Amino acid sequence: MLNFSFQNPTKIHFGAGQIKAISKEIPLNARVLLVYGGGSIKSNGVYQQTVDALAKHTWFEFSGIEPNPTYDTLMQAQGVIKAEKIDYLLAVGGGSVVDGAKFIAATALFEGDDPWDILAKNQSFTKALPIGAVLTLPATGSESNGNAVVTREGNKLPFASPLVRPLFAVLDPSVTLSLSDRQIGNGVVDAFVHTIEQYLTYNVNGKVQDRFSEGLLQTLIEEGPKALLPDTKDNVEVRANIMWSATMALNGLIGAGVPQDWTTHMIGHELTGAFGIDHARTLSIVLPAVMKVRREQKREKLLQYASRVWYINEGDDNARIDQAIGLTEAFFKKMQLPTRLSDVDLGINDIELLIARLKQHGMTALGEQSDITIDISHEILTQAL
Amino acid sequence: MLNFSFQNPTKIHFGAGQIKAISKEIPLNARVLLVYGGGSIKSNGVYQQTVDALAKHTWFEFSGIEPNPTYDTLMQAQGVIKAEKIDYLLAVGGGSVVDGAKFIAATALFEGDDPWDILAKNQSFTKALPIGAVLTLPATGSESNGNAVVTREGNKLPFASPLVRPLFAVLDPSVTLSLSDRQIGNGVVDAFVHTIEQYLTYNVNGKVQDRFSEGLLQTLIEEGPKALLPDTKDNVEVRANIMWSATMALNGLIGAGVPQDWTTHMIGHELTGAFGIDHARTLSIVLPAVMKVRREQKREKLLQYASRVWYINEGDDNARIDQAIGLTEAFFKKMQLPTRLSDVDLGINDIELLIARLKQHGMTALGEQSDITIDISHEILTQAL
Repeated sequence: MLNFSFQNPTKIHFGAGQIKAISKEIPLNARVLLVYGGGSIKSNGVYQQTVDALAKHTWFEFSGIEPNPTYDTLMQAQGVIKAEKIDYLLAVGGGSVVDGAKFIAATALFEGDDPWDILAKNQSFTKALPIGAVLTLPATGSESNGNAVVTREGNKLPFASPLVRPLFAVLDPSVTLSLSDRQIGNGVVDAFVHTIEQYLTYNVNGKVQDRFSEGLLQTLIEEGPKALLPDTKDNVEVRANIMWSATMALNGLIGAGVPQDWTTHMIGHELTGAFGIDHARTLSIVLPAVMKVRREQKREKLLQYASRVWYINEGDDNARIDQAIGLTEAFFKKMQLPTRLSDVDLGINDIELLIARLKQHGMTALGEQSDITIDISHEILTQAL
Repeated sequence: MLNFSFQNPTKIHFGAGQIKAISKEIPLNARVLLVYGGGSIKSNGVYQQTVDALAKHTWFEFSGIEPNPTYDTLMQAQGVIKAEKIDYLLAVGGGSVVDGAKFIAATALFEGDDPWDILAKNQSFTKALPIGAVLTLPATGSESNGNAVVTREGNKLPFASPLVRPLFAVLDPSVTLSLSDRQIGNGVVDAFVHTIEQYLTYNVNGKVQDRFSEGLLQTLIEEGPKALLPDTKDNVEVRANIMWSATMALNGLIGAGVPQDWTTHMIGHELTGAFGIDHARTLSIVLPAVMKVRREQKREKLLQYASRVWYINEGDDNARIDQAIGLTEAFFKKMQLPTRLSDVDLGINDIELLIARLKQHGMTALGEQSDITIDISHEILTQAL
């Protein structure tokens, strides 16, 4: 196991009816900005529950945060923040809304020249508005971590700071019943790949972390498809297990003390930036190709993954790895996601643009040992055709 | 899954050489009381590393906290706290030292009449001194939770408050190499039983919690015995996996959203209080008996435990449960712990005293459904003979 420091102070309120907990979590003298996306929270009742919980608070609202939230949209929030002296953000939505709130929180108190530098130049900041979150879509884990991704003119860039980690997060699995199959499929696969990217690396004998990751993968494999099947899709217990898995997949715990290989996410971001493909659908296309191209470097963990997650214990090493990769692809298909570039109408002629963008964003030494060169990324994309 | 609220803000610094992190965690203007037990931290170098890390701090010390820390000892710390205006406690030791520091922290700022009421009358308190911890014995999880147990005249009573949860904890597995086999065996079994008591209940379909608990049990089963075997006992990786398992077993995470049955601990406390038996050795005696007496109520989870933790999938239900209980006892024996009252020279004539003490302490409705009556506790103790 590697040395590590770990802290996750986000307070979680989990379960049906927990939205009312926000009334006690946000100080009564706060000036709250309720931040959300499109109108879905108005049709599924979450907006009303939130407004009810804020009955004694002073609050304003800012809506219109899109999937893959954009710099231009998020900067517009600064108007109401200054005009109304906002000092607390309440993000109500999925990972994009929570990510967006994080950038708004950092920008509101930013003392540098240009807030875009937080993303483009990795510029640090020393303060941010406090954030609370009401999660409506289990996927990104953003509700209890300090990470966010923001897009500007097709450039999709991450930043991270403990200052923007939500102070509390409400996870009510019953509100996810109104999600579309596409949102559920995307969310389950996103959480699955978050787990894989902290697990499928060289082996440092982190036995607790490995077992926890395997437990999350198994839970997502068992429960994910149920959320799409007619007989079980309305089962709140299924939704609860998916929701808790997605939070645990990226709250920092399973990645503490082990290497992490975020290659799939980094290549995936270029697919979204260049072609507008849903985040999770870029992951389901890239991950199998990463597994195939990096099978030698990941051999030990791929065999462990085959055995412990998929119960594959027959056949020689290569056959077991092939079978595990095949079952991973089959799981993504069962969640109704693509596994090839051709599934989203991309082909060999599109690879050069993706490679150029990886270079432009400095993504030329990926993987936990920084040994995935741009040539290897090219090989991965070719494998994914 | 049950509704829950969960927060664990303790910052963990894990790995060899991390004791130096305390220099940055404790404010430089703090007046620190270093709290420890006997002299073991002086012979294994932990005391010196701690003193070195506090080179720029103002600090004092209070030693002599015994295993199963006593009220009388802990109250003596109030003298130096008042005389030196102590405002920060640094606990250096195992669970008993950390537990003791928690009671000292609560007592220092207690505004009620009698600090014993915190334990005897479950009296709440509104403030406590901040605590940091350097853990030297992986077992109790006390380094990142708000629980403590204190003994007075043979009465061993628990209290809990988020106010006494350590702000930070240093976990350096290399310092555990100097522990005796008895300390290691006790610690591994303590962590194992903590996990079991949050797992072996009626089933609420908390799939993540179940998988995490099973992962901890498997890790302790795999790594525990290695810490006693000549060829592997000096392996720091083994110690690291045990140490992280013990912390994760009782930091609140695996118990969030699931029922908990602390019967084994509650009966075990009476065995320690009445006869001075090591805490973990009471658990290894009581748990198998609880499994046998409560096999019908715990049937579903016992079968899951048999299959997922011990890979027992052959034979009828009862045979599989018997085998799982047998393997649990064999594991405890491999860790060099007793599994019967007769192993610690107790017999049928001692049961009445234990029953009387359970009654005296109000332990007459144990278990996650409060249905373990005093008669059932009698049956459990008889089963454990």
